[in-house]
Amino acid sequence: MGSEGAFSAQKRGSGGLPTANAAVNGGARSRAASLLPRGRQIHKTFNNIKITILCGFVTILVLRGTIGLGNLVSSEADAENQHLIEETNRILAEIRSDKDPTDPDDGPEQFLGLNDTFSLGPRISTWDQDRKVWLEKNPQFPSYVNGKPRFLLVTGSQPTPCDNAIGDHYLLKALKNKIDYCRLHGIEIVYNMAHLDKELAGYWAKLPLLRRLMLSHPEVEWIWWMDSDALFTDMVFEIPVSKYKDHNMVIHGYPDLLFEQKSWIALNTGSFLFRNCQWSLDLLDSWSPMGPKGPLREEAGKILTANLKGRPAFEADDQSALIYLLLSQEQWMSKVFVENSFYLHGFWEGLVDRYEEMIEKYHPGLGDERWPFVTHFVGCKPCGSYGDYPVERCLKSMERAFNFADNQVLNLYGFRHRGLVSPNIKRIRNETVAPLVNVDQFDIRHAAHHTTEPQS
Amino acid sequence: MGSEGAFSAQKRGSGGLPTANAAVNGGARSRAASLLPRGRQIHKTFNNIKITILCGFVTILVLRGTIGLGNLVSSEADAENQHLIEETNRILAEIRSDKDPTDPDDGPEQFLGLNDTFSLGPRISTWDQDRKVWLEKNPQFPSYVNGKPRFLLVTGSQPTPCDNAIGDHYLLKALKNKIDYCRLHGIEIVYNMAHLDKELAGYWAKLPLLRRLMLSHPEVEWIWWMDSDALFTDMVFEIPVSKYKDHNMVIHGYPDLLFEQKSWIALNTGSFLFRNCQWSLDLLDSWSPMGPKGPLREEAGKILTANLKGRPAFEADDQSALIYLLLSQEQWMSKVFVENSFYLHGFWEGLVDRYEEMIEKYHPGLGDERWPFVTHFVGCKPCGSYGDYPVERCLKSMERAFNFADNQVLNLYGFRHRGLVSPNIKRIRNETVAPLVNVDQFDIRHAAHHTTEPQS
Repeated sequence: MGSEGAFSAQKRGSGGLPTANAAVNGGARSRAASLLPRGRQIHKTFNNIKITILCGFVTILVLRGTIGLGNLVSSEADAENQHLIEETNRILAEIRSDKDPTDPDDGPEQFLGLNDTFSLGPRISTWDQDRKVWLEKNPQFPSYVNGKPRFLLVTGSQPTPCDNAIGDHYLLKALKNKIDYCRLHGIEIVYNMAHLDKELAGYWAKLPLLRRLMLSHPEVEWIWWMDSDALFTDMVFEIPVSKYKDHNMVIHGYPDLLFEQKSWIALNTGSFLFRNCQWSLDLLDSWSPMGPKGPLREEAGKILTANLKGRPAFEADDQSALIYLLLSQEQWMSKVFVENSFYLHGFWEGLVDRYEEMIEKYHPGLGDERWPFVTHFVGCKPCGSYGDYPVERCLKSMERAFNFADNQVLNLYGFRHRGLVSPNIKRIRNETVAPLVNVDQFDIRHAAHHTTEPQS
Repeated sequence: MGSEGAFSAQKRGSGGLPTANAAVNGGARSRAASLLPRGRQIHKTFNNIKITILCGFVTILVLRGTIGLGNLVSSEADAENQHLIEETNRILAEIRSDKDPTDPDDGPEQFLGLNDTFSLGPRISTWDQDRKVWLEKNPQFPSYVNGKPRFLLVTGSQPTPCDNAIGDHYLLKALKNKIDYCRLHGIEIVYNMAHLDKELAGYWAKLPLLRRLMLSHPEVEWIWWMDSDALFTDMVFEIPVSKYKDHNMVIHGYPDLLFEQKSWIALNTGSFLFRNCQWSLDLLDSWSPMGPKGPLREEAGKILTANLKGRPAFEADDQSALIYLLLSQEQWMSKVFVENSFYLHGFWEGLVDRYEEMIEKYHPGLGDERWPFVTHFVGCKPCGSYGDYPVERCLKSMERAFNFADNQVLNLYGFRHRGLVSPNIKRIRNETVAPLVNVDQFDIRHAAHHTTEPQS
């Protein structure tokens, strides 16, 4: 390339250089070429080689980037794994994108306007009486069993796989944790994975769910909503229901934060009790109007931020809306018990590092800061992509809380976890030919049974 | 670069070209330069530009490959997501690699030798009597409730996250499915995520678990083992326990496959019942010797392959071992009920494509091929990396089975899934001011209650 160009330049040039006539034979041409100084020839060749090498290098880099040439040398297992991941993702996308073109609900999203009214359902005004009559007619479905009111624990998660792969694993562990507590205390569980009302999704989804469950389970006396990121950490503690015989809602919080500071975190709706009664239906009806997504929720968010201390600017959430409702409408507070004598909700950050100290000094059954009833991983969001805390801190802490609780369950079987971060267990009691001695001593239900609260 | 080289060549050259003396001033030098034909100058410049561009391009490509320069232009979200994945993987690796150097159990793996004897625990020989005495002393923990024997459903999965991310999501859904069935039928659940015996891991892990649970839960009459990949698909059907009053084990299978063909798939240990009694403890003791990993399990595998029709060559599994045990030791079969009048275990492949047909023609409560009680996803292994069937087929089928079952649960609440592959639901009954009418009509427990079998 270079030499040709130089040659042509020579031909074109007119000042004092020997020119090679086109008609001159090959010999003349090579004679002309040999007229180039040897150094320049070397230099030209060197240039050519440089450019060739550079071009070759660039080609390789580009190929590597585009067709993954580097992958040809990875193992077959990697290729299969990659294929598995791609297949899985494709199927997930298909599942997630399900739309029914004939379904009017599946049309373009339509938000309620600011002047529209939202309703969870037709107003029911005789629920207490209706329920009482039903219970009398159905003695095989009593609302009190062995002197204890019937509880239904409600929790749930999104119907589709978590954005973060590890999220589903922790949802699974958190569910096992709830199954264990509820088995020990005779509580039924509903795990919801459905959106009952497309207006009220996300944290608002619990409202239509609570209504639907209350009306479908008249035998249930108390509905207990619990977030999927909350774990039981005291397997012995029982809710002291007799305290609440004159109340219809029990929620963890601090009265001074609520009434004096009007703080947006005065109460926590991650774990609360709701009596199955008319009052609760009415509260839900008053609570829900800030929920419907779109302009209603946006505007409501502004009102909440303006009125509640410390609240950042974002759309209305169920917790802020409840606080605002209780502060602005007088009729509710008399039936709401703001509980903080035990951790119906226990914010994880101040608790998870103290488990070893708790094991050393205290024992299950206390339910408070000495041995928290519930450890709630607010802000960790393992199912989503963006939590408010470092991932490592969250995952390790959830692992610790899970194992701290699991040890209390495994105790009956003679095992415990090797460490609070370990999924593996070790034996703490040998097998015996008299296992029933251990049952009498270590079964939590026996301990709970002997301290049953008198019926309210 | 090029021009300098050419210039030096000119200087060195001696044939016929005007040379520039080093002492010549700038003017002379530029005069010498202007002596180069204009075309060659352009050509040289062009060469230089080419090389500069090439070098610049290469630099960018290399940088992009090494320091991920390309990421600077991708969204912040991608970078955060990548970080999240890396963090998660790092933490998982840490959790999985937990080892306690002070723990003798954590030393290098030691297998039992072929001449060693394995035992699940010290031999208990008076369990029936011990249990009877205990039940009499503890009337608050009866083994029969409302005329029905007390069941404990046992299932579980590995303590660490699945190899395949989607696996945990399906474990979660399968657990919700079991929670729903068990809530409707008053059955308690134990979800095991621990290895009770390091010799017996994998499919053998259920043996020490069954023993441990029997001995720790004397109030339980029947223990029901169910694999994590088995789903309830008939939410109404109840196990006809009176059929089994003279039996201690109920397992799905086919007598001719068992006795005549000695087939390795004559029975399925993915879903079976085990009465809490001495006979069962004895069976476990006879069943377990083929289980301990290492030479024992390997050798046992060879015996099983040699004796059971169709069995591939691999280490001993619990199902083949049970079949072999029942065929080679006479004393067991009289108490084993080989059940195939309903799908205590229903192999998924022949069932999942027929759900729409079932919905059209039949109704829940049949439990057999018309409306299978249990659909069992043998071979799909969503938690692992390598299933025996295409991933898409498995995931879609599990989704369909889950929704087919979930529809039966949602029916009480007035909803169903939009399609058998859809996680989304639609309303099938309007909200009403008389919800208890629907409870009476649609609550499965009311239907089950009215058809309670007489106590055996």
